[in-house]
Amino acid sequence: MTPEEFRVHGKQVVDWIADYLGSIEKHPVRSRVEPGAIRAALPAHPPERGEPFENVLADLGDVLLPGITHWQHPGFFAYFPANSSGPGILGDLLSSGLGVQGMLWATSPACTELETVVVDWLAELLGLPERFRTTGSGGGVIQGSASEASLVALLAALERAGGDRQECAVYVSSQTHSSLERAARIAGVPVRSVRVDQDSLAMDAGHLAELVADDVAAGLVPAMACATTGTTSTTAVDPVRKIGEVCARHGVWLHVDAAYAGVSAVCPELRWINDGVAEYADSYATNPHKWLLTNFDCGVLWIADSAPMVAALSTLPEYLRNSATSSGEVVDYRDWQIPLGRRFKALKLWSVIRWYGAEGLRGHIRTGVRHAAEFATLAEADPGFEVRAHRPFGLVCFRPLWAGRSEVEHNALTLELMERINASGAMYLSHTKVGDSVVLRMAFGSPATESRHVLSAWRRVREEYERMGSAGN
Amino acid sequence: MTPEEFRVHGKQVVDWIADYLGSIEKHPVRSRVEPGAIRAALPAHPPERGEPFENVLADLGDVLLPGITHWQHPGFFAYFPANSSGPGILGDLLSSGLGVQGMLWATSPACTELETVVVDWLAELLGLPERFRTTGSGGGVIQGSASEASLVALLAALERAGGDRQECAVYVSSQTHSSLERAARIAGVPVRSVRVDQDSLAMDAGHLAELVADDVAAGLVPAMACATTGTTSTTAVDPVRKIGEVCARHGVWLHVDAAYAGVSAVCPELRWINDGVAEYADSYATNPHKWLLTNFDCGVLWIADSAPMVAALSTLPEYLRNSATSSGEVVDYRDWQIPLGRRFKALKLWSVIRWYGAEGLRGHIRTGVRHAAEFATLAEADPGFEVRAHRPFGLVCFRPLWAGRSEVEHNALTLELMERINASGAMYLSHTKVGDSVVLRMAFGSPATESRHVLSAWRRVREEYERMGSAGN
Repeated sequence: MTPEEFRVHGKQVVDWIADYLGSIEKHPVRSRVEPGAIRAALPAHPPERGEPFENVLADLGDVLLPGITHWQHPGFFAYFPANSSGPGILGDLLSSGLGVQGMLWATSPACTELETVVVDWLAELLGLPERFRTTGSGGGVIQGSASEASLVALLAALERAGGDRQECAVYVSSQTHSSLERAARIAGVPVRSVRVDQDSLAMDAGHLAELVADDVAAGLVPAMACATTGTTSTTAVDPVRKIGEVCARHGVWLHVDAAYAGVSAVCPELRWINDGVAEYADSYATNPHKWLLTNFDCGVLWIADSAPMVAALSTLPEYLRNSATSSGEVVDYRDWQIPLGRRFKALKLWSVIRWYGAEGLRGHIRTGVRHAAEFATLAEADPGFEVRAHRPFGLVCFRPLWAGRSEVEHNALTLELMERINASGAMYLSHTKVGDSVVLRMAFGSPATESRHVLSAWRRVREEYERMGSAGN
Repeated sequence: MTPEEFRVHGKQVVDWIADYLGSIEKHPVRSRVEPGAIRAALPAHPPERGEPFENVLADLGDVLLPGITHWQHPGFFAYFPANSSGPGILGDLLSSGLGVQGMLWATSPACTELETVVVDWLAELLGLPERFRTTGSGGGVIQGSASEASLVALLAALERAGGDRQECAVYVSSQTHSSLERAARIAGVPVRSVRVDQDSLAMDAGHLAELVADDVAAGLVPAMACATTGTTSTTAVDPVRKIGEVCARHGVWLHVDAAYAGVSAVCPELRWINDGVAEYADSYATNPHKWLLTNFDCGVLWIADSAPMVAALSTLPEYLRNSATSSGEVVDYRDWQIPLGRRFKALKLWSVIRWYGAEGLRGHIRTGVRHAAEFATLAEADPGFEVRAHRPFGLVCFRPLWAGRSEVEHNALTLELMERINASGAMYLSHTKVGDSVVLRMAFGSPATESRHVLSAWRRVREEYERMGSAGN
C-alpha cells in the first residue's frame, strides 16, 4: 500500500470509526451471536489474490459487528468499562504509523525519553512519591496491563529476596486480582492467602503479620505482599500503611495494585488512596486504560529501585550491544518488561494528557463518581434493592431483594435478572460474589455515559425486577 | 473528543503519516541525538489545561522526530527491519477505534472468532500441520512477541512435565533467542546449553541426546527443548527433525522458535524449514511483524494440545464467570497468554492477508531474499570482504578484511566501519559475533527497500571501507 493509498484508505477508516462512535447507541451493547456463528460466516481459506480495502470495511460492518460487544456504548457498565478516547486512539495510530521499536534507548531515543517524561507527568498528577520518578534510582514504565506489572514486580521482589523460590512466599487476599495468583504460578512461588475483613473486604494487616512471622519462624523468605487499592470485584481498599509497616519490619517487597482506582488520585479529594505509598511501596501499578481516557492497553508500573528488576530480566546478546547501553547513561526499557520488543507506547498517554489537561482528567473521574452516586441514590431509595455502602469510586455493588427466598434461590434470581437485562441489549452489567451472596456490579466511568443513561439504566433494572416479581418469581 | 472532532483530527493524523511515509528518505536513518536531549526539550510538568491536537502534531515533528530512528526507512538494515504496512496500520486503527477487550469469548465473540480464523489461515499459508488448527485439540493465538510465545510454551511444557521446577531442564543453544533464557529465569527452571556446529551454528542433536540422557539418569525431568529456524544472530537453522526425534524418545516438549523465518514458508521453495514440525513440534511461533508486512506487535503461537497451557494459566474469579465459558464450547484467549486483557488483535493480520493475498505475501518474501542475494553477490565479488555462505533468507552476514591485523584489531576496525556507516545517516546496519569474529548484519525485507537502495548501501559500505584503508587503518 503506497503512502497515497494509505491516505485514501486511512480517511475511510477514520470516517468509519467516527460514524461508529457517533451512532454506537443503535447497537445492542452485548453481542447476541451464538458460539461459532461469526467463524461460520467467514471464508475458511485465505485469499490467493489481494482484495480492495473496501472489502475489509464492508465485512467489518456486515459480518463482524453483530459479534461485537460494544465496550464504548454508554450503556456498558460491566467489568470496568473501556476508557477509549479520540486522542488515545490517535496516539496509538501515530505509534503504528511511525513503526519504531523501542526495546533499547538506541533503537529510537525519543521512544524511551518521551516515556520517561510521560510516566513522570502521571506520577506528579497522581501525587506519587519522588522516588518513583525516572530521575532517581527507580522510575516508571508503560506495561500492557496490570497482569504484566504484577509479574514484573514479583520477579524484582524475588530477585531482591534471593534463595529458592519454593522457600519464598507471596501474600495476597481472596480479593487480590487473579493476575497475582497467576504471576506466582508462572514464577513457581507459593502463595499465602491473608484474611479479609468480612464487611469491608480489606486485607487484615494483623493476619498478614501472623503469616509472615510464621513463615520467618519456619525459615522461609516472605518475598512480596500485594496490597490493592480498589479491587476488581468490589473496589475494596486494603490498608496500605498498615500492610507497609508489616512489610518494612520483615523486608518484604510491597507491591500496590491500584490498577483501577489509582488514576482517580488525579483528584485531590481521592488522593487518600495513596496513604502509605510514599513510605512503604516498592512498586505501584495503575491502568490509564481502566479509568483515564486511554484506550487499551496502557498500564503503568513504577518501581522505587529498578536494580533488582533489571537484574531479573536483563540479557544482552551481542547483536543488542551498543555504546549508549554500555555508557550506563540511558534506560533500556526491554529490561523493564516481559517481552523484548515494544511499540512507541508513550504517544498514546502523551496525547491524552495534552488534549484533556489535568483539569479534563479530573473532570472525567468526577463524572464517574457522580454517576455512581446518582445510581446508588436511586437504588437506595427503593425498598426492593440493597446497596453496598462501600462506594468511593465509580462502582456500585447492589442486589435485588427476593423476599422469603434462600440464599441459593436468591443468587439464582439475581443472576437471572442480570441475564434478562443484558439480553435486552440496552445495557450490560456484570456480577460478583460478596461472601455467599451474588451482587451486581454497575461500573461507571465510560466516557460516553451521561446522567440520562444512568437514569435509564436504573429504570431498566427496576422494570425487569418488577416483571420477574409479577411473573411469580 | 467528540466523534466529529475525531473525524477532523483523525484525518490530520492520516495526512501526517502519509506525508511521513512519503518523505521518509529525507531523514537520517539512525537518530543523532545525545542521551537526555529529547527529555530536556519536553515540558517537565503536565499541562493543567487541555491543548489543541495540532500542538501534539507540531511537537511530534519539531521535538520528537530528531529522536526517532526510522525503522521504515528503505536504508534500515539493522536487527530485523520493521514490517509495517498500510493495511497493518489500519487494522490496528480499527482495533483502537472499536475498543473492545477480548479476554473472554463472551466479552466480544467476533474478537475471538476472527482470531481463530486468521491463525488458521496463516497456518494454511505456511503449510503448518493440521493439529495446529483451532478445530482440534490445539490452535493458534496472537501474542505480542516471540518472547511471550516462548514463555507460554515453556509454562505449558512445565505443566505437562509436572514435578519441581528445579528438577526440570530446558535445552537451548548459544544461538537460541535470549527470550528463552529469560523465560526460563522467569519460571525458575535450569537451562542446559546444547553445543552448536561451529560452521553452521545449528544445534547439535547428538549433544542434545547426551544431555537429555544424563539428566534422565540423574533423575531430572527434561521438560522442553527449543529448536530455532532462523536464529536472530545469523539465521542459522536447527535440525528440527533430529531434535524432534530426541524429544519424542524422552517425552520432551519441542518448541520451534521460527520468529523471523517462519513466515517465509508462504513460499513453497522455503517450506523446507517446516521439516519435522508436523511430526514432532508441540508448539511453534513466528512473528508476522518481523517479515510479513504486519506492524509490531504481532506474533503467533500455535500449540498442538492447549490443555496443559490452559491448566498452567487459567484462573476464574467470580466476576469473569459466564455461560459461554461454562459450556466449554468457546475459546477464552485469556488462558492462552500472560496478560488477562487483550485488544482485538486479529484485525491487523486479517487486513494484511486480505489486502496482499497469498500472492502478495510471497512476493514480499521473495523480494527480501532477492535483495539479500544482490548484496551478497556484490560483496562476494569484492576481495576486501568475506561473506558467510549461509544465506537462505533475507539476512547477509559479512565482514571487511583488514590485512595483517589480529582478531582483536580486526573486530575493532569492523565495528568502527559500522559506526561510520551508521553515523552517515544514509543507512543503518548491526553486528553480531560468529565465534570470536565480529560480523556485520544486513537484514533485507523492509517493504520500502528497492534494488537501488541495496546497490547504494553496498557502495556506502565500500566507500567507508576504502576511506578507512586510505587513512592508514
